Amino acid sequence: MNQVRALSYGESVLIWDEEKKKSFLFVLKPGGQLGTHKGKILHDEIAGKPEGSLVLSSTGARFRAFRPFVTDRIMKVQRKTQIVYPKDAAWLILAMDLKPGMKIIEMGTGSGAFTILLAQLVGPEGKIYTFDRREEFLKNAEENLKKAGLKDRVVFGSLNAGEPFPVKDVDAVFLDLPEPWLAVHPAWEALAPGKALAIIVPTAEQLKKSVEVLKEEGFAVIDTVEILERRLLVRKKEGVRPFEKMVGFTGYLISARKITKQ
Amino acid sequence: MNQVRALSYGESVLIWDEEKKKSFLFVLKPGGQLGTHKGKILHDEIAGKPEGSLVLSSTGARFRAFRPFVTDRIMKVQRKTQIVYPKDAAWLILAMDLKPGMKIIEMGTGSGAFTILLAQLVGPEGKIYTFDRREEFLKNAEENLKKAGLKDRVVFGSLNAGEPFPVKDVDAVFLDLPEPWLAVHPAWEALAPGKALAIIVPTAEQLKKSVEVLKEEGFAVIDTVEILERRLLVRKKEGVRPFEKMVGFTGYLISARKITKQ
Amino acid sequence: MNQVRALSYGESVLIWDEEKKKSFLFVLKPGGQLGTHKGKILHDEIAGKPEGSLVLSSTGARFRAFRPFVTDRIMKVQRKTQIVYPKDAAWLILAMDLKPGMKIIEMGTGSGAFTILLAQLVGPEGKIYTFDRREEFLKNAEENLKKAGLKDRVVFGSLNAGEPFPVKDVDAVFLDLPEPWLAVHPAWEALAPGKALAIIVPTAEQLKKSVEVLKEEGFAVIDTVEILERRLLVRKKEGVRPFEKMVGFTGYLISARKITKQ
Amino acid sequence: MNQVRALSYGESVLIWDEEKKKSFLFVLKPGGQLGTHKGKILHDEIAGKPEGSLVLSSTGARFRAFRPFVTDRIMKVQRKTQIVYPKDAAWLILAMDLKPGMKIIEMGTGSGAFTILLAQLVGPEGKIYTFDRREEFLKNAEENLKKAGLKDRVVFGSLNAGEPFPVKDVDAVFLDLPEPWLAVHPAWEALAPGKALAIIVPTAEQLKKSVEVLKEEGFAVIDTVEILERRLLVRKKEGVRPFEKMVGFTGYLISARKITKQ
Repeated sequence: MNQVRALSYGESVLIWDEEKKKSFLFVLKPGGQLGTHKGKILHDEIAGKPEGSLVLSSTGARFRAFRPFVTDRIMKVQRKTQIVYPKDAAWLILAMDLKPGMKIIEMGTGSGAFTILLAQLVGPEGKIYTFDRREEFLKNAEENLKKAGLKDRVVFGSLNAGEPFPVKDVDAVFLDLPEPWLAVHPAWEALAPGKALAIIVPTAEQLKKSVEVLKEEGFAVIDTVEILERRLLVRKKEGVRPFEKMVGFTGYLISARKITKQ
Repeated sequence: MNQVRALSYGESVLIWDEEKKKSFLFVLKPGGQLGTHKGKILHDEIAGKPEGSLVLSSTGARFRAFRPFVTDRIMKVQRKTQIVYPKDAAWLILAMDLKPGMKIIEMGTGSGAFTILLAQLVGPEGKIYTFDRREEFLKNAEENLKKAGLKDRVVFGSLNAGEPFPVKDVDAVFLDLPEPWLAVHPAWEALAPGKALAIIVPTAEQLKKSVEVLKEEGFAVIDTVEILERRLLVRKKEGVRPFEKMVGFTGYLISARKITKQ
Repeated sequence: MNQVRALSYGESVLIWDEEKKKSFLFVLKPGGQLGTHKGKILHDEIAGKPEGSLVLSSTGARFRAFRPFVTDRIMKVQRKTQIVYPKDAAWLILAMDLKPGMKIIEMGTGSGAFTILLAQLVGPEGKIYTFDRREEFLKNAEENLKKAGLKDRVVFGSLNAGEPFPVKDVDAVFLDLPEPWLAVHPAWEALAPGKALAIIVPTAEQLKKSVEVLKEEGFAVIDTVEILERRLLVRKKEGVRPFEKMVGFTGYLISARKITKQ
Repeated sequence: MNQVRALSYGESVLIWDEEKKKSFLFVLKPGGQLGTHKGKILHDEIAGKPEGSLVLSSTGARFRAFRPFVTDRIMKVQRKTQIVYPKDAAWLILAMDLKPGMKIIEMGTGSGAFTILLAQLVGPEGKIYTFDRREEFLKNAEENLKKAGLKDRVVFGSLNAGEPFPVKDVDAVFLDLPEPWLAVHPAWEALAPGKALAIIVPTAEQLKKSVEVLKEEGFAVIDTVEILERRLLVRKKEGVRPFEKMVGFTGYLISARKITKQ
């Protein structure tokens, strides 16, 4: 890796306001301007600087310039749908036993937020086959992957839930669908032996139905969880406590491994 | 990847009891035997089968044979210390913006559980430099990495908290130390610009002191969280509800990005 | 109240081991002995002392003697069934708008743990009508209420779910039944206008069915929650953090108010 | 109790919008009008009806009329300060072993929200002695208690943290102060033997200091918790799941019992 290179035109840049904990994600362009809640920032002031550099806005406000992390990409995709949040995405990564070079099926694509994470982690040797039945979602997701510089690791396809997947012997399958049980059998057919199927669902009823179909369709080692992330407020003078507001729920997560049918 | 190959001698195998949700991890050997709570299993019965195959014990009990996932490796390392649990490890992976090919510093090594995950995710092109002040921990961790087949991606070193790290321009640093603040300045020195430092600490006081030192030593975008994982019990007849017991706490997690000192 | 009186024979006493956070509940008797994990304690050593007094066991171990609080009574009832835990009982008390003098229906009685709390809070002017279909539960609960000195505030009755309650114009109804929806209409009939019905159920399916029937049967202001209690470990030297183990789930709680049927 | 009487002029009334889960609390007056987000409601339409009755606004919107529950009172007090939330108040009630007839000290009074609950539960035979150092808080709280019809059960006093309480042999003490440790010794002096001291604090540091001082000043059976309340969304068609937003933190709760100093 050559991470010490300066920020340059054409790259995605994250501008961070440490005081307000607010960030902006954009592509650095010669002569470009970023409008913020605290004045304008000139792109030319950023280009050529190392990550973490101080950048002053037109009003003298202090910002920091970074390359975006994958969680920034996830949270700032152009959304056409609900996304898989980082707290859940993180758990799914381990549940799917992710490794560089893996071949993974994702359905549905949605806004492509989780696709970005998968594509980052499988590396240039890996491949994500992502399917959705709605063309507009696929197009938007493709745009989001392109912005993240990861489009070449992803194959986009149009598919309805229940149709067979056109790839076989994949290393993992992820389902984010209203009726994920429809795609459980196709997932079994597409997976290499012993590999993982992961699912996210929004309700207890969908959780139950998914687990039932997993058991019928040749899956075992079924795990069903929800992840709660509590942010802590850490202040020198006032002291430490959890934040007063928190995200209460984003989804139930399921993982399972393919077994032989006998 | 060539994941469709059968389980073979010399490999690590996970034997799973679906009924009791209990598993065994061991190396497959010609003529070997595994003693379980439900009778013996002959290694020779496993060799040559695909993952997910049914294996019967001497008492006729049903088991499934798999290659272990990284979470199985983590939970079943030879422990000399507390480990970083999967729920926390997963969050840290995203906080460190992990990618194949990354060069990462970890201190302390502990039992090497998190090291295994890092080594898996950076792939064959990446490198983990892991440090501990206790030789016995390093030796045990080295053994755990060897069992996971990932030892060649890891460099083990003896170091005291506060000493400079002997590698520079790394892509991320992770600290799991009683006094992580001692290693914050060395971490800053070792990190490439803008890259992530992640920390796990067990108490509110250590959380506070760590955050204070991060602010003084050139870090921003500081995030402080704890992760709660709730397992759901999903049963066809009796219905869906969270499990009666849960892990209440394993640690506070911190992430931050290196900034220029001005 | 005359709370300053000394502990005397015939009273329930709680012996507390501060080091082990362990307690014993028993009736103080002349010549009685309590066997503990740290030696014997003579009842005669306790009688005549004020609450909070130091009591030494035969091995010289230090204990404290108290009158039991209602939560001690709840946790130490003779159990024939699952009980309503204090964290949930507390929420229910507010949901039922408890006041001294109230007339309350409870069904099923179970072990009478929640009955004890209700009886304590309605005071000598109040009355709890508690029903169960199983005679052995009623008998056991009656014994538990007697030990708590609150039996005279409670009327025990045998009833099947769905049968009309033999009291009318009550101030609140509480249901702890496998099929609480069967008792929703009888609860509506028994409640005074606008008063509260509270329910505890163990699964998402029962939660859903209960809420549906509440809406059909003339209830509004429906609230559905679960309560998580996290204990903190507070130590001077090692610092503050949540306990490593916690109770993950005990039940879903429902509250609603009776409305006119139009 | 005579709960079946109709709503009448001079009483507090809660108007509830079932669709929006929104409520209004006000005193019923001849000729009065309530302005809502869905048109006007005439007080005269409410008077004389039983609780739970349907009330139509000027736009034909459907509302229900109730007497307020104590949680409605708590949430709708005129606030000059942060209040003790129902989820925490409920736990504290059990921790203080509340009973009708008890004599309780509270400091500080704040907006009087928790005072209302205490006053309701001790009944007409009980007494709450509530102290605050700020006259404006005491005045506002007195007004809130008056609206709740419970002022005659409460004695308001001006006091600084650390000053001795002017009442003795009380059945419980509750502290809600920036530096509760200052009032721990006065609480010990005021409590009857073995009785409970309960405290709410907003940070880990205050939790720690409070517990340390409790141990030094003659308290045992110390419990330290936080309460999380998760609301469930229960819908017939879409299914059951927790709400997406939740209150993340409101305070750490402490309870302890007075012991003899030896």
